[in-house]
Amino acid sequence: MRIVVANVNTTERVTEAIGVQASSVAAPGTEIAAVTPSFGAASVEGNFESYLAAVGVMDRVSAVTEPFDAVVLAGFGEHGKEGLAELFEVPVVDITEAAAHTASLLGRRYSVVTSLHRTTGQIRDRLALTGLDSRCASVRATGVPVLDLENDLDSTAEHIAREAQQAIEVDGAEVICLGCAGMAGLDERVSERIGAPVVDGVTAAVGLAETLVRLGLKTSKVGGWATPLSKEISGWPLSGR
Amino acid sequence: MRIVVANVNTTERVTEAIGVQASSVAAPGTEIAAVTPSFGAASVEGNFESYLAAVGVMDRVSAVTEPFDAVVLAGFGEHGKEGLAELFEVPVVDITEAAAHTASLLGRRYSVVTSLHRTTGQIRDRLALTGLDSRCASVRATGVPVLDLENDLDSTAEHIAREAQQAIEVDGAEVICLGCAGMAGLDERVSERIGAPVVDGVTAAVGLAETLVRLGLKTSKVGGWATPLSKEISGWPLSGR
Amino acid sequence: MRIVVANVNTTERVTEAIGVQASSVAAPGTEIAAVTPSFGAASVEGNFESYLAAVGVMDRVSAVTEPFDAVVLAGFGEHGKEGLAELFEVPVVDITEAAAHTASLLGRRYSVVTSLHRTTGQIRDRLALTGLDSRCASVRATGVPVLDLENDLDSTAEHIAREAQQAIEVDGAEVICLGCAGMAGLDERVSERIGAPVVDGVTAAVGLAETLVRLGLKTSKVGGWATPLSKEISGWPLSGR
Amino acid sequence: MRIVVANVNTTERVTEAIGVQASSVAAPGTEIAAVTPSFGAASVEGNFESYLAAVGVMDRVSAVTEPFDAVVLAGFGEHGKEGLAELFEVPVVDITEAAAHTASLLGRRYSVVTSLHRTTGQIRDRLALTGLDSRCASVRATGVPVLDLENDLDSTAEHIAREAQQAIEVDGAEVICLGCAGMAGLDERVSERIGAPVVDGVTAAVGLAETLVRLGLKTSKVGGWATPLSKEISGWPLSGR
Amino acid sequence: MRIVVANVNTTERVTEAIGVQASSVAAPGTEIAAVTPSFGAASVEGNFESYLAAVGVMDRVSAVTEPFDAVVLAGFGEHGKEGLAELFEVPVVDITEAAAHTASLLGRRYSVVTSLHRTTGQIRDRLALTGLDSRCASVRATGVPVLDLENDLDSTAEHIAREAQQAIEVDGAEVICLGCAGMAGLDERVSERIGAPVVDGVTAAVGLAETLVRLGLKTSKVGGWATPLSKEISGWPLSGR
Amino acid sequence: MRIVVANVNTTERVTEAIGVQASSVAAPGTEIAAVTPSFGAASVEGNFESYLAAVGVMDRVSAVTEPFDAVVLAGFGEHGKEGLAELFEVPVVDITEAAAHTASLLGRRYSVVTSLHRTTGQIRDRLALTGLDSRCASVRATGVPVLDLENDLDSTAEHIAREAQQAIEVDGAEVICLGCAGMAGLDERVSERIGAPVVDGVTAAVGLAETLVRLGLKTSKVGGWATPLSKEISGWPLSGR
Repeated sequence: MRIVVANVNTTERVTEAIGVQASSVAAPGTEIAAVTPSFGAASVEGNFESYLAAVGVMDRVSAVTEPFDAVVLAGFGEHGKEGLAELFEVPVVDITEAAAHTASLLGRRYSVVTSLHRTTGQIRDRLALTGLDSRCASVRATGVPVLDLENDLDSTAEHIAREAQQAIEVDGAEVICLGCAGMAGLDERVSERIGAPVVDGVTAAVGLAETLVRLGLKTSKVGGWATPLSKEISGWPLSGR
Repeated sequence: MRIVVANVNTTERVTEAIGVQASSVAAPGTEIAAVTPSFGAASVEGNFESYLAAVGVMDRVSAVTEPFDAVVLAGFGEHGKEGLAELFEVPVVDITEAAAHTASLLGRRYSVVTSLHRTTGQIRDRLALTGLDSRCASVRATGVPVLDLENDLDSTAEHIAREAQQAIEVDGAEVICLGCAGMAGLDERVSERIGAPVVDGVTAAVGLAETLVRLGLKTSKVGGWATPLSKEISGWPLSGR
Repeated sequence: MRIVVANVNTTERVTEAIGVQASSVAAPGTEIAAVTPSFGAASVEGNFESYLAAVGVMDRVSAVTEPFDAVVLAGFGEHGKEGLAELFEVPVVDITEAAAHTASLLGRRYSVVTSLHRTTGQIRDRLALTGLDSRCASVRATGVPVLDLENDLDSTAEHIAREAQQAIEVDGAEVICLGCAGMAGLDERVSERIGAPVVDGVTAAVGLAETLVRLGLKTSKVGGWATPLSKEISGWPLSGR
Repeated sequence: MRIVVANVNTTERVTEAIGVQASSVAAPGTEIAAVTPSFGAASVEGNFESYLAAVGVMDRVSAVTEPFDAVVLAGFGEHGKEGLAELFEVPVVDITEAAAHTASLLGRRYSVVTSLHRTTGQIRDRLALTGLDSRCASVRATGVPVLDLENDLDSTAEHIAREAQQAIEVDGAEVICLGCAGMAGLDERVSERIGAPVVDGVTAAVGLAETLVRLGLKTSKVGGWATPLSKEISGWPLSGR
Repeated sequence: MRIVVANVNTTERVTEAIGVQASSVAAPGTEIAAVTPSFGAASVEGNFESYLAAVGVMDRVSAVTEPFDAVVLAGFGEHGKEGLAELFEVPVVDITEAAAHTASLLGRRYSVVTSLHRTTGQIRDRLALTGLDSRCASVRATGVPVLDLENDLDSTAEHIAREAQQAIEVDGAEVICLGCAGMAGLDERVSERIGAPVVDGVTAAVGLAETLVRLGLKTSKVGGWATPLSKEISGWPLSGR
Repeated sequence: MRIVVANVNTTERVTEAIGVQASSVAAPGTEIAAVTPSFGAASVEGNFESYLAAVGVMDRVSAVTEPFDAVVLAGFGEHGKEGLAELFEVPVVDITEAAAHTASLLGRRYSVVTSLHRTTGQIRDRLALTGLDSRCASVRATGVPVLDLENDLDSTAEHIAREAQQAIEVDGAEVICLGCAGMAGLDERVSERIGAPVVDGVTAAVGLAETLVRLGLKTSKVGGWATPLSKEISGWPLSGR
């Protein structure tokens, strides 16, 4: 099985980290192909950048030439899932929904701890469309920008754990979701600190994607995610289309 | 006052029609600048095309060199409002929300009548984020593709009126919203047929935008629609940025 | 165009202030007719008084002899919109809904800052019926009674700004609505203090009403706001009916 | 114990019928005082009339000189509960909420069958404020005006039963609420026809009111239903105040 | 009239206290039969114990040989109502729903004050199914285990009053529900301390059950609570079946 | 890895079928232990039987002596998940939530097709607690009792496909969930007939359980699903406790 894991920003180092994280949980026989958009922002922290990323990811995944069995959209709270779901028949799993679905199995309420405060509203909106916002206790921000998350992993884990603890004590969360693909790999560290399950969206999405493939399930084409109609798309050198 | 009205597709003829419609209701002294994205789909009828349009519109409005006082996003149910709201300080009015807000003033429940069935879910999602889905009785489709709407205006009005009538009798709607910028100009014709108010999002959005400008109101920058952080955006010749 | 702006209480001084505020934003050619109910409470701060006001306003607007194009109900969170909507064909805009619709265009969440704590529940209920409560972050009270608001405008603005600041920082609001017609005219002052948009319901309602009239839209008569049936109404010298 | 049961319209014959119905279920020792507003509509079938009724009932109950232990607002879907709740310390039970609460104990979903279609939206709104709209399967209308309900009780019961049957089969209702005080006394007849429980709001409200009195419970005065502030109310010969 | 009041735990002393409380409000002629499950936990403070209790109560009430007119399920936030509703034709009133319905008549929002924090989520879930969660301001815990509640009634009342006061001031509650059958009898004491109505679910349920019986209403059998199909139930010496 | 899959009824033949189905999708190295409760109903089609099953399954899984890594509760719409979640540290996956989560990844709206009409309300309630009811288009019943489902698989598939088709065309579903563990194995057959994805809860739950185990995630013990307190449980020979 081959799963394309698409980073939403253009920072190769982040793509690599996501790829490593995804591979670490993949079943034997699952190949992870981590890809980077050929245009867009170095980090995605807002709607303007997120809409760019949606197109960047659609472009990049469309350019993949080898066959694949599933797509993971590795941007927390980002736009694009519905577009990818239209373009491909294979399952598309967004790490936002993957984290929320997974956390919902493990406790009554979950909270998301993300990077910058400015992205919390966008995350709320994406969770609302997923339908799992009623189980979301809160979306909290550490204030650490995406590209600084890796500078000092211990310090980052500490920042996340502090907000996670508040989410549990004040907001009533029972499970924590790491609200940024760049936090991948910190789940165990944070979990040990707070004594509650911590879900990383990237690994959760890989697990869900593998499950969907193994069950032979594909994206529904009878409604809102039907294949785009064949029509003229001009002025845009969209890769591979 | 100058209002940029952005078509979401690359069909100039639609831009012109939208511009005419917008100008027809603009107050004396309001100038309408109707613009077309420099890339994207000839018509937008799904999420893939809509995400392209979101970026196409952000790109095109960013390239406008003369000052403007407000932006109207003239695509019903399309993506992009939050990105535009981040990029500019002047108010941004999406015709989807404009139609829903306006209809809510005139009756207890409204329905949307749009072009193709495949777009109804996407419209529902956008209304949900607007918060006005609880007053939406239904989203119905005529089955007429966007670019065919103008072929025979009487026939199109007839198709819309038929669904509108069902929306009133079966779904409990009291007001109808035209669910496609390409339907602009048909509001009166349909209203006469069904005996209920019909709201065209383009003219409603122009009216709301004028009101916001006259009241001196701008987009809030203290939360989710704050100006994008300054950062590297690579691989993309984004106009005017 | 002529817009009847109905104060909900019997204090002429408030009617005058509302009239001045409404006129300040009206387009050239729009005439504002501010009217006072002939009975009711000197200020409306609760449901008993608000129901009286609903009837007082219906009575007073029914007694207007010159033709008019729209009605503005200038009481924040008060009863009566549905009754007025039944009585007249021209659009009726309640300042509560006007503020909420307008604020929703400018940010993800809005808060209302009103006079007394006892009215916050009633405001919540009215917003719930409007459908825009999901975008309402909070309703806060300054504790200043309606008729004292004008005593010291600087102090009043200070009280409002303090609660508005809390609404932004604690509740997640991005836009503030002035929750009392008697606060009309303080929007700019408060906005400067808090650095976020402040919506005054009276001016917002005038703008929306003008837009509806210009678009040729009227209240729907096919459902819940149909014209009252002709029937005996006894024991009540209702003006002009 | 003495319970004031307030008719919302000025038709004495309806007051008498409501009084008889209320007395038929009252416990030994409970005295029912059915009262008629001194002004208002002969029947209440819309918001204009309902707002009048809200004031008419507040006026009439305020004029009651003998002490009483509870108030029943006997108009289905009508305005006024919050105003009465402010004016008095004794419990106030609206037949709309009484029916919905009672029906919720007997089945998963209930439907309301009322008189005219034009009142269904108003009933929906009142149920929404009660919080019990999520258990409401539908609000259906027989098309029989309030004052014609008594003309031919068999025919009326037949009309109600027909809609009730549809509510069960199509909408998923398990319990039916009679949606008009004027239907009081038809509950058993309809129940026999449809084989499901039928709740009459008047008798349900009397039962709930008696229970509240027996439990020593009164309306909360710490929030939205606190006693009105003492203030000038002019131009209105409000009875007994 | 005879009402079976079923304790959910196996502690006879609690059954007796519930019986005394229930009898104290029963109308003349109403007989209260308080029963104890023949198996289960000494106190119910979680889902495992609550599911046991659901079966224990179904078992115990099925074993009642004398005829009865209604059942009260005397466990706050516990499972079982739907099962009892299927088994019997007479009305079944759960003290959780009884408290919520009763409180909703007396104020805009209510809060629940219960024993241990671990049960608050379960209570929230039961209220959600009741449909009255939208009127629930909060569920707070005193931290006093069920079986310690009676040790020092003054201290327990003090603990409850403290949380109740917070619920009013911080969460916006206007009415308090005692969130544990073991708190029965403390309502007046707490109400005096906080100056707001306090609802005890046991007495409220008895009142509602009496009302339903007097109105001749029974559980609906046309939907989700229809009588169980006749089928083999093996391996279980279920009493009386 | 070892996963205990618990049938909710006492019919061994159903346990075997579920076991076969679960094993068919399990990864190499995953062992499926299908177990049958030692007491309860031959088939579970209602709340009374479902509460029995909740205890039967808790009892049976508690009696498993060999270590296991996850539990699958194989009853669609049945009670018990929260109790199991309290009793064990390993993840517990209910097939109801598994189906809903999985379907939500594949389309905008899903419908459930179950056995008897009487169970649809119970399924709705369980989905509501899962938070995924907003994405549920409908719950439809074939009318075929649980134990008859296997009599004629072609006929059963036909019945399911018919309702599924209606769910897609009338209710707007894009994905179908098989609403009964006894339907396991029919997913592909139905999917071919309707041309849309069909999710079987049993295989979905096995996939999700494997994923949770591989990710090292366990049930949260910091909130509503904390381990039961140690206390006396009397009168019940609960296996293995």
